[in-house]
Amino acid sequence: MSTLIDDIGELVTNEPELGDGPLGIVRDAALVLDEGKVAWVGPAGRAPAADEVYDAAGRAVLPGFVDSHAHLVFAGERAEEFAARMSGRPYSAGGIRTTVARTRAATDDELRANLRRLVDEMARQGTTTVECKSGYGLTVADEARAVRLAAEVADEVTFLGAHVVPPEYADDSGGYVRLVSSEMLAACAPHARWIDVFCERGAFDEEQTRTVLEAGVKAGLTPRLHANQLGYGPGVALAVEYGAASADHCTFLTDEDVAALAGSGTVATLLPGVEFSTRQPYPDARRLVDAGVTVALATDCNPGSCYTSSMPFCIAVAVRDMRMTPEEAVWSATAGGARALRRTDVGRLGVGARADVLVLDAPSYLHLAYRPGVPQVTDVWKTGVRVRSPQPG
Amino acid sequence: MSTLIDDIGELVTNEPELGDGPLGIVRDAALVLDEGKVAWVGPAGRAPAADEVYDAAGRAVLPGFVDSHAHLVFAGERAEEFAARMSGRPYSAGGIRTTVARTRAATDDELRANLRRLVDEMARQGTTTVECKSGYGLTVADEARAVRLAAEVADEVTFLGAHVVPPEYADDSGGYVRLVSSEMLAACAPHARWIDVFCERGAFDEEQTRTVLEAGVKAGLTPRLHANQLGYGPGVALAVEYGAASADHCTFLTDEDVAALAGSGTVATLLPGVEFSTRQPYPDARRLVDAGVTVALATDCNPGSCYTSSMPFCIAVAVRDMRMTPEEAVWSATAGGARALRRTDVGRLGVGARADVLVLDAPSYLHLAYRPGVPQVTDVWKTGVRVRSPQPG
Ligand SMILES: [Zn+2]
Ligand SMILES: [Zn+2]
Repeated sequence: MSTLIDDIGELVTNEPELGDGPLGIVRDAALVLDEGKVAWVGPAGRAPAADEVYDAAGRAVLPGFVDSHAHLVFAGERAEEFAARMSGRPYSAGGIRTTVARTRAATDDELRANLRRLVDEMARQGTTTVECKSGYGLTVADEARAVRLAAEVADEVTFLGAHVVPPEYADDSGGYVRLVSSEMLAACAPHARWIDVFCERGAFDEEQTRTVLEAGVKAGLTPRLHANQLGYGPGVALAVEYGAASADHCTFLTDEDVAALAGSGTVATLLPGVEFSTRQPYPDARRLVDAGVTVALATDCNPGSCYTSSMPFCIAVAVRDMRMTPEEAVWSATAGGARALRRTDVGRLGVGARADVLVLDAPSYLHLAYRPGVPQVTDVWKTGVRVRSPQPG
Repeated sequence: MSTLIDDIGELVTNEPELGDGPLGIVRDAALVLDEGKVAWVGPAGRAPAADEVYDAAGRAVLPGFVDSHAHLVFAGERAEEFAARMSGRPYSAGGIRTTVARTRAATDDELRANLRRLVDEMARQGTTTVECKSGYGLTVADEARAVRLAAEVADEVTFLGAHVVPPEYADDSGGYVRLVSSEMLAACAPHARWIDVFCERGAFDEEQTRTVLEAGVKAGLTPRLHANQLGYGPGVALAVEYGAASADHCTFLTDEDVAALAGSGTVATLLPGVEFSTRQPYPDARRLVDAGVTVALATDCNPGSCYTSSMPFCIAVAVRDMRMTPEEAVWSATAGGARALRRTDVGRLGVGARADVLVLDAPSYLHLAYRPGVPQVTDVWKTGVRVRSPQPG
């Protein structure tokens, strides 16, 4: 069934040849969706006939958000730990091990339901492409289950067995790295496109990161990396060296790191929700953009360091606290996310692109940053199919 | 018609005698709404019969938010000015004068429609009590129109003729203060409960503030004050001296200001959306709470310095950047707002309170800060009447 979206006040295409500026903005536009793709883009009132017509009534229309970094296969939540952290109270029961234990104990159906709930929640907020990582199983069977479930629901699947060293290997991180790079990888690679490592002091060091990435590449996966979140380190340089699609976090960067990113095909994916929810300093998006680095914005949605699923929220924080312009932030949350996933079919609204579309209850994309926290995403199409209303209940 | 809300996992009553802690939390609770009021509070499954039953399915239920500071009678918006400010670009066409000109030029119906749109948007996000100020008319007729329209839609109406000196009086602020305190006040007082002044360097000074407040009190209005937003000044001291219900903003406070507030019946209303949207430093809520000051949170929703209508967003920012605990922030957005409006019927869920209720799609109020930006308010009752779904379109 084809759908005509007519009377679009401001259409963000992310196709500079179609419209103004880097967002390729077309005013008074229309869009036809057919067979899951964009079939036509042009002026309002001139579109070919379609099976159904949606009147955008002068509102802004954008490509669906591309969330290129999320951890959605888990059970339980950690609201009490969050409250303790924000209140300066000690909280001994928390941490990622809590989530690992809960995830291992959950049934497939419980994990699947939670994953679907979060992906649906994202869709209602305009996110139409979701990357999802494993990393709370940390056994061969539990990681394999995580990537299998992720592949059922998410658009992109990342094997992150090297998320943290599990309790069973507390004194043998080398043994765990060998497990991740051999049996666990073999069980997970068929369901995943990406190999990821949490390369950070206290997690996996440079040599361990190399071991896992090289094994992943041999198994047919493409690297992406958790890098330089909590301190300076080798993560970003490794991401560039291994041709990773993305180096994620990028909070602590040397000038060499920035130059390496700028001269590479590696995107810097910034995750402002994490710094918001942990009161950490924000990465300096301005420095990266000004150096010519391609920047993506993503949520990092996870129950520990950042439980937001909201790309509009990340855009608003990126503008306020990372000194991006609204234009840059919206580009990074759509086209930037697509680059970070090496996708050319999403994050844009030209003919042939996937029919992933969101309508804002506002005249301009600027309102995403201008009206922080206000749910303005009114209607969403994912692969041409209308997502149900934002009513969560 | 009576409504039973059953199977509430966590009920925030703000009645310490009903439950745990300052939020008076009752677990596994039920609530009966009848004739616009709370008729019964008690354990789940034990409530008296009601005409309809709503199953909260273990989710959290809170009093509706009380937004004690908003400027909603205006026309137009200033997204371009916001984008220029956040991008470091000059923008000469902006400022409050733009909104004053647009507001004066608008019809009653246009202003009413915009006001209703914003109050509805607030309601869908859980705000069930709204204070609304005049202040974009700045002529006798335009201010009288503003308070009259506000009285149609909002719960509390504030006459803020002393918002800014209008262009016609650019060289005669004394003359404008005389107009505000005489003819304009006389035209507005019948529709308003509160008198407010923007007491700040560049707006109205101490003597002018005294003149307006004293005239307002004589006309039967109660003071509240815009105070100490942009710098140190006499605003907070004046608020306390005149027994204002609230001193709003409170970003720049001396120790004397804090002590004066702590020893008074004047609430400090903090508006974190303003600092978020202007990149200004946040007020220090921790200092105020620790000194024993009663703190309210409000949006300041207006088209210039802060166009959010979202109390959940303000709660999340208050926790992150003003160092409130989630418990304090939720109290301030409900009971605190009620104190700032000297209302005892809202901001709490004890028997006899107004039936203003919100259901979160989450097991605890903690999720308001734990999941920033995520639209979690599922269902809302205002004076016992169900507000339509959060679908804005
Ligand atoms: Zn992550
Ligand atoms: Zn104000």
